[in-house]
Amino acid sequence: MALPTLDVNNALSSSVGQGGLSPDALEKVAPRVASAHAAIFGARAAGKLPYLDLPTDRAAADAAKALAKELSGYGSLLVLGIGGSSLGAKALFTSLCHPFHNLLPVERRGGRPQVFFPDNSDGSTFSGLLEVVDLQRAAVAAITKSGGTAETWAQLLLLRERLGAEAARRQVVAITDPERGALRAVAREEGWRTLPVPPGVGGRFSVLTAVGLLPAAVAGVDVDALLSGAAEMVARCDTPDLAKNPAAMLASVLHLLDVERGRRIHVFMPYADALRETADWFVQLWAESLGKQESVGPTPVRAVGATDQHSLLQLLMEGPQDKATVFLAVEKPRAELSIPRDTPAQPDVKYLGGHTFHGLLSAEQRATAAALAKGGRPSLTITLPTLDAHGMGALLMLLELATSFAGQLYGVDPYDQPGVEAGKRYTCGLLGRPGYEPSRDELAKMPAGDPRWVVR
Amino acid sequence: MALPTLDVNNALSSSVGQGGLSPDALEKVAPRVASAHAAIFGARAAGKLPYLDLPTDRAAADAAKALAKELSGYGSLLVLGIGGSSLGAKALFTSLCHPFHNLLPVERRGGRPQVFFPDNSDGSTFSGLLEVVDLQRAAVAAITKSGGTAETWAQLLLLRERLGAEAARRQVVAITDPERGALRAVAREEGWRTLPVPPGVGGRFSVLTAVGLLPAAVAGVDVDALLSGAAEMVARCDTPDLAKNPAAMLASVLHLLDVERGRRIHVFMPYADALRETADWFVQLWAESLGKQESVGPTPVRAVGATDQHSLLQLLMEGPQDKATVFLAVEKPRAELSIPRDTPAQPDVKYLGGHTFHGLLSAEQRATAAALAKGGRPSLTITLPTLDAHGMGALLMLLELATSFAGQLYGVDPYDQPGVEAGKRYTCGLLGRPGYEPSRDELAKMPAGDPRWVVR
Repeated sequence: MALPTLDVNNALSSSVGQGGLSPDALEKVAPRVASAHAAIFGARAAGKLPYLDLPTDRAAADAAKALAKELSGYGSLLVLGIGGSSLGAKALFTSLCHPFHNLLPVERRGGRPQVFFPDNSDGSTFSGLLEVVDLQRAAVAAITKSGGTAETWAQLLLLRERLGAEAARRQVVAITDPERGALRAVAREEGWRTLPVPPGVGGRFSVLTAVGLLPAAVAGVDVDALLSGAAEMVARCDTPDLAKNPAAMLASVLHLLDVERGRRIHVFMPYADALRETADWFVQLWAESLGKQESVGPTPVRAVGATDQHSLLQLLMEGPQDKATVFLAVEKPRAELSIPRDTPAQPDVKYLGGHTFHGLLSAEQRATAAALAKGGRPSLTITLPTLDAHGMGALLMLLELATSFAGQLYGVDPYDQPGVEAGKRYTCGLLGRPGYEPSRDELAKMPAGDPRWVVR
Repeated sequence: MALPTLDVNNALSSSVGQGGLSPDALEKVAPRVASAHAAIFGARAAGKLPYLDLPTDRAAADAAKALAKELSGYGSLLVLGIGGSSLGAKALFTSLCHPFHNLLPVERRGGRPQVFFPDNSDGSTFSGLLEVVDLQRAAVAAITKSGGTAETWAQLLLLRERLGAEAARRQVVAITDPERGALRAVAREEGWRTLPVPPGVGGRFSVLTAVGLLPAAVAGVDVDALLSGAAEMVARCDTPDLAKNPAAMLASVLHLLDVERGRRIHVFMPYADALRETADWFVQLWAESLGKQESVGPTPVRAVGATDQHSLLQLLMEGPQDKATVFLAVEKPRAELSIPRDTPAQPDVKYLGGHTFHGLLSAEQRATAAALAKGGRPSLTITLPTLDAHGMGALLMLLELATSFAGQLYGVDPYDQPGVEAGKRYTCGLLGRPGYEPSRDELAKMPAGDPRWVVR
């Protein structure tokens, strides 16, 4: 089946003038791309980049599918997880399921559960959720790779109490490290079912583990097609040839637009509501993987077309020349609607008659790319033939691999996130966690705010 | 009632070192703030800034409330609008209504309609929506200030056909310019009810017109409290004294962090799920108002705490020093949940026992601000006493006024958006609109993409 394509013409000086890259720049980066390819696929061969092997890990996929089948009779699935333990599954759910899945009557959902991602440790959201789900008919997927994520545990501890030990044994599934961490230990003690997150796969690269596959399968996503699309994309990108490698091309163009043209804001703009959460997933992937040094770290910004033409476009068109836009177009929509031919005669309305919604959306995407190009502002366009599981698997893998290539080009480790630890320590200090007294004391010693600088 | 407060201590060098502002810088900007105040409130007195008078426009509020009452018996309200015609109402709906309003049984919604914002011209979303609402029991608010927004008309034309003229007369409300534009003309011809958008109020400043008030009132928002909060904030900010003017202080600190410290990415990060859409609303307001020149235009980025600690925080902590973060904390949550005291003994879990969800969220916000400060990265904190209509009115007005002040400080017109026209012309050209042949021809003459730069 067809894979997504990547068109970078509008990022080149031939289209956008001096704000774009010269083809020279791409020729010059080619040897670095070849080295990056050798490093990435060498690491894979050495077993050190297991996310690339997930698409062919049949055993893991089958385990997720089998468990999903057992859960499919529940009224709802509550996915407890945050960040990398939520964004991937949410991207799959929103891109591949009915846009109002949770509002459909159960028979129109094929008997499948409603799916919720409470995500944040926000008591207003979670108490609201408990008002609309019947907890006796809810399955719970608790997902934390480390096993110790505070937000997820807050929710899980509450549900564990409300369900009681016996119901929890039936209804809770823990998805976590196969050996280590608090969730694994508690799951053992309390007899919860579990699925493993392979130790070498980081949270933001884990969408094709049980972390993403279990909720997706419960919601009715075709996991096999998803994995086959991803596998095809891995194969496609296993080449040192920049011109044939969409992940390397995406990474190279964005990297060069940043370091050679000062375009360190990367706007990721799908023209499809269903890809909104995929953009959120990419924002985490790109930001957390590459934001590692004062001199390195593009800022990804999520936008959705055509909606954000009415929000960010003014800034993209006329503001500072510090941005590059990645459009994501879908060639064939999942559902189509026609605008009636019979319209009022007003010129602002009449021309719309007889077009399709998708025709309008697609014209807006091409028009926006053209307007940016004419204004000397570069963009790239990924085109997805259709929004199905195979295409989504390919797209997600394309973006993960682009992140690996970008890590090589920027010279940073895209798989760690050391910067988030300080905040976690302070949180533990504030909540009185034993052992975190030094963090608490450090906070207490910070200068008190001067009341002059508080406007009341 | 208490208004939101603004604490800028963590934006100053006393807290964050050289990445922050010296108090000198704020003293130096004070005269410019006084001039800005004179310009803004002078324009208001001359009738040229009518958004500032919306909070006391009783007649407009009463009209919106009366019409909302008539619509309150419908099963659902479809709000057709995009950008400024959708973001404000969505912010009010999601911040002030039940987080799962549309999933509540009708009696738990107080008999009120479900509320939907289809927003985009995405046929998959819209056809999905038509599967879950009963169109015979749906009210339709069609909102476009100019009267000619393509996305909104695509949806409206479809519903107009499906409803038929007679039902449309009962079910459609048009919210648009009082005299001009296609929607006004069609509403007259077809006998639809209407509410006006005051001509001098731009889309992104229109949340307190019928654009925001009608959908909010239908959903059950206390419109009077909303307006009284906004009115109090206008009064609060009607002073040339920087130290007493939260809008001027917010604008000044963000402006100075941009122009003096190169922090041109402004991360807006509420610690409350309910404020996610308010952040989207602010992104439009800030981006479209200020993004006007190659040398002027901060990029606003939406984040939500604690969720995006697991996404953007790594970049904020260790990436380039080009960002400032605006935290938005809520002191007293609308609903509260306690984490059970009885927890497993694992150290990663035990310390959470007995805390509240809000206690955890609030500790995370303070910890993150402290970690950023320790890393030399500035932030500001807006604190909302509680998330109610009065507070939201005050918050939205604070942010609108901050935008007016920022326009003055940056030296741009914050009320126009000339940059979005080129894309609209190309869209009309692509769709064959009479009169737009030159745009079509211009597009046709653009260089065809070189197939070498398309990776398939």
